[in-house]
Amino acid sequence: MKVLIIHAHPEPQSFSSALKTLAVDTFTEDGHEVQVSDLYAMGFNPVASTADFGERANPDYCVYALEQRHGVKTGTMSADIQLELEKLVQCDLLILNFPLFWCSTPAIMKGWIDRVFVSGAVYGGTRFYDRGGLKGKRALVSVTLGGQPHMFGKQGIHGPFESMLRHLLQGTLAYAGLEVLEPFIAWHVPYIQHEARVEILDKWRDRIRSLEGEIPLSFPSLDDFDERLYPLESTVRQTTE
Amino acid sequence: MKVLIIHAHPEPQSFSSALKTLAVDTFTEDGHEVQVSDLYAMGFNPVASTADFGERANPDYCVYALEQRHGVKTGTMSADIQLELEKLVQCDLLILNFPLFWCSTPAIMKGWIDRVFVSGAVYGGTRFYDRGGLKGKRALVSVTLGGQPHMFGKQGIHGPFESMLRHLLQGTLAYAGLEVLEPFIAWHVPYIQHEARVEILDKWRDRIRSLEGEIPLSFPSLDDFDERLYPLESTVRQTTE
Repeated sequence: MKVLIIHAHPEPQSFSSALKTLAVDTFTEDGHEVQVSDLYAMGFNPVASTADFGERANPDYCVYALEQRHGVKTGTMSADIQLELEKLVQCDLLILNFPLFWCSTPAIMKGWIDRVFVSGAVYGGTRFYDRGGLKGKRALVSVTLGGQPHMFGKQGIHGPFESMLRHLLQGTLAYAGLEVLEPFIAWHVPYIQHEARVEILDKWRDRIRSLEGEIPLSFPSLDDFDERLYPLESTVRQTTE
Repeated sequence: MKVLIIHAHPEPQSFSSALKTLAVDTFTEDGHEVQVSDLYAMGFNPVASTADFGERANPDYCVYALEQRHGVKTGTMSADIQLELEKLVQCDLLILNFPLFWCSTPAIMKGWIDRVFVSGAVYGGTRFYDRGGLKGKRALVSVTLGGQPHMFGKQGIHGPFESMLRHLLQGTLAYAGLEVLEPFIAWHVPYIQHEARVEILDKWRDRIRSLEGEIPLSFPSLDDFDERLYPLESTVRQTTE
């Protein structure tokens, strides 16, 4: 299996970095091939802009997704995007490893998505959700945060964690065709001691070793919608009954 | 009223930019004071990093939020953050104006949030949700996208729009204490013609002129939770009944 880990944390000694390192070691030990894009270490540029295109489809007005499609066809996207896109297209499992910043990824990782999830390669036209460009690959979000599980329960103050991450799990990863596994969540990290951290690392190692048999989360299928994306009769009936 | 518009679009001639310009003109005409942070034009740096702090609370290990608190106390945060934070603290209404990138803000705007929503000023300790640092101010998200309303309906393929933006509306803006108004959504923008665009602009102008009387969206109140953020008995009873 080819594993691509996208890692983003401003502190190289962070617990998030420890999760990344453990993942690299465990996958490697088990005979998998691992690549890491450590976005802070790379100084990755997260700003989607006209500078991303060596040649423009329309030099007078930039529709970013249309320029991406042109860039894919002509091979003229900037080198850093091209490189990350190649890693992405080649991988079997994509891991996004980050600390929760404002209930989402740090901006540097959002920018990796904005720039590397390229229209024409990753999605576009009718290629999304279960027909997305990354179909056949799996995705796993591993995240560290200060909060505790009861704050993200059904009765929790923030509501369910997966619902807070819906823009990422559904709107991004599942939309691009990836099979999205249940997130790995390291709770309360800044407030816990060494032993509790070791326990999380042990769980993470176990989780990595049991990924193969996991059933991914459930997301919409284009089969349930017509061409204009109105729900098909049968779908409406099922969900309202 | 003091209005702060944070705008982020890679194309200065975009419809999103037209929304921004119309907002500036309308608020100004009506006697309000408007400031705009046009993040692309400013070349705003969206990457939260150790470089944000002129003086470190802990030079050996960066916990970003702790360094922010130290930076606020000592006035040693980098100048670009300081400037944006002053604008934010002084405004009565914050508008985030952007094109939807992967069901969220473009990375450059996510980075504005990561760096400018400073712990110690905007939130921290027990200052969040209805006790957040930005209490008394209002926030409005105005967003352009390619999708259509039926795709974001209850039966829609992506689910309700506000639920897709929950990380921003609840997890960020409401968390910081802002009263969050219903988002202004410009649907299907890349696919519509001049007349339909003018119609949206007219609606936007009307919306801006009727903001005063609006009832904000509803979000959690700390009054319904105990000190450890477990829901109080009465809250549980209400929601399960």
